[in-house]
Amino acid sequence: MHRLYYSPGACSLAVRIVLEEIGQPYETEIRSAKNGEGTSTADYLALNPRGRVPALTGVSGGSGGAPDLLTESVAILLFLAGSYPEAKLVPADAAAEARCLEWLSWISVDLHGVGYSQLWRPHRFVPDPTLHEAVKGKGLENIRAAYDHIDRILSDGRDWAVPARYTVVDAYLSVFWLWGRRIGLDMEAGWPNWARLMTKVLARPAVRRAISLEAMG
Amino acid sequence: MHRLYYSPGACSLAVRIVLEEIGQPYETEIRSAKNGEGTSTADYLALNPRGRVPALTGVSGGSGGAPDLLTESVAILLFLAGSYPEAKLVPADAAAEARCLEWLSWISVDLHGVGYSQLWRPHRFVPDPTLHEAVKGKGLENIRAAYDHIDRILSDGRDWAVPARYTVVDAYLSVFWLWGRRIGLDMEAGWPNWARLMTKVLARPAVRRAISLEAMG
Ligand SMILES: N[C@@H](CCC(=O)N[C@@H](CS)C(=O)NCC(=O)O)C(=O)O
Ligand SMILES: N[C@@H](CCC(=O)N[C@@H](CS)C(=O)NCC(=O)O)C(=O)O
Repeated sequence: MHRLYYSPGACSLAVRIVLEEIGQPYETEIRSAKNGEGTSTADYLALNPRGRVPALTGVSGGSGGAPDLLTESVAILLFLAGSYPEAKLVPADAAAEARCLEWLSWISVDLHGVGYSQLWRPHRFVPDPTLHEAVKGKGLENIRAAYDHIDRILSDGRDWAVPARYTVVDAYLSVFWLWGRRIGLDMEAGWPNWARLMTKVLARPAVRRAISLEAMG
Repeated sequence: MHRLYYSPGACSLAVRIVLEEIGQPYETEIRSAKNGEGTSTADYLALNPRGRVPALTGVSGGSGGAPDLLTESVAILLFLAGSYPEAKLVPADAAAEARCLEWLSWISVDLHGVGYSQLWRPHRFVPDPTLHEAVKGKGLENIRAAYDHIDRILSDGRDWAVPARYTVVDAYLSVFWLWGRRIGLDMEAGWPNWARLMTKVLARPAVRRAISLEAMG
């Protein structure tokens, strides 16, 4: 059975959604990413030297930490989708699968790794705290630009992020939609095509379950 | 036939290496990433609204730009490896494939998207040019920390980044090895386990061909 290390409201939510979509039993362990409270403890760093969530047990070949721990949202999402093909969370077609990976990779670099990291962890970018406001301001600008880019892609009327099927990309996008709300952006007004997609995604039973299970701890 | 949009010495080198490993004919088009000279022109942005290299033609389902253009190194590398299984550039085993994706994703976020972007494109992180030195300094620190992390993973004596087989990860790692040299780091002294791997990777005929083809333009 897989165990998911997660932090409520963090990017690990996407993995929880996918686990709920798959519907097999799994365990969870909370590791708060807030100020690294649960992710930078000695015991967690022994398991996962990168000190982040999500991380998923039950995948052989781990390096430097627990021998069966897989890190990186993109890797975990596609590993799970590939391991449970009956859940149909990734397209069988090679080009469409590459489109999933393109979305996931771009989001995790430009939107999460750059934009949101600037906003929430400015010390990663400049040590001097007096400069943090400048980093956060530009982070918000980068987030808005990424959101515009997402909305533009979705403006062609497609049904899902990768057309014709709900995939792990739609689950991953929902994290950044909820984060946008959390930082006070008017998501519906700003990004109407994305809003249309999210109405469908957030109505899915598995997505609702994942969100409410997380909220319960 | 695929066409690769690349910039000499940029991260697109990893894709070129993989194309050389595969050994099928391909075309290239140079788009200098230096100050965005070739990547932020109107004609390139019409093809690839993200304005980056690498980008690969011949993959259906493109969004917002050319309908057959695939972006994101991670997606292109795994798409090519999957399309030419006889080149054996990705493991057939699901867990080992997830380890490839874990490496690729982590490198593209933390080392490339954060570390090197800070060093080479500080304006992405703070608009005020007087703050750029602070961003670059912290970028170099992040690069060194990522290099230490790579070396620690490789310190268990494994033969390749994902054990037992040369994969797209080794090709991708070679870009960041060459970049380390370019910025004046003493790579051999600082990261001996990575050095041991790179001796093998850089000796491969396909890697040599990719590097020298690029140097010739
Ligand atoms: N590239 C990683 C990033 C993971 C990440 O940064 N997770 C955050 C939560 S959203 C975290 O654990 N932060 C704790 C910390 O930075 O100390 C991924 O996509 O999984
Ligand atoms: N996440 C992308 C990043 C690509 C990227 O930033 N490429 C650089 C060259 S190494 C580039 O084209 N830069 C041009 C620019 O930023 O204007 C990937 O991994 O492919």
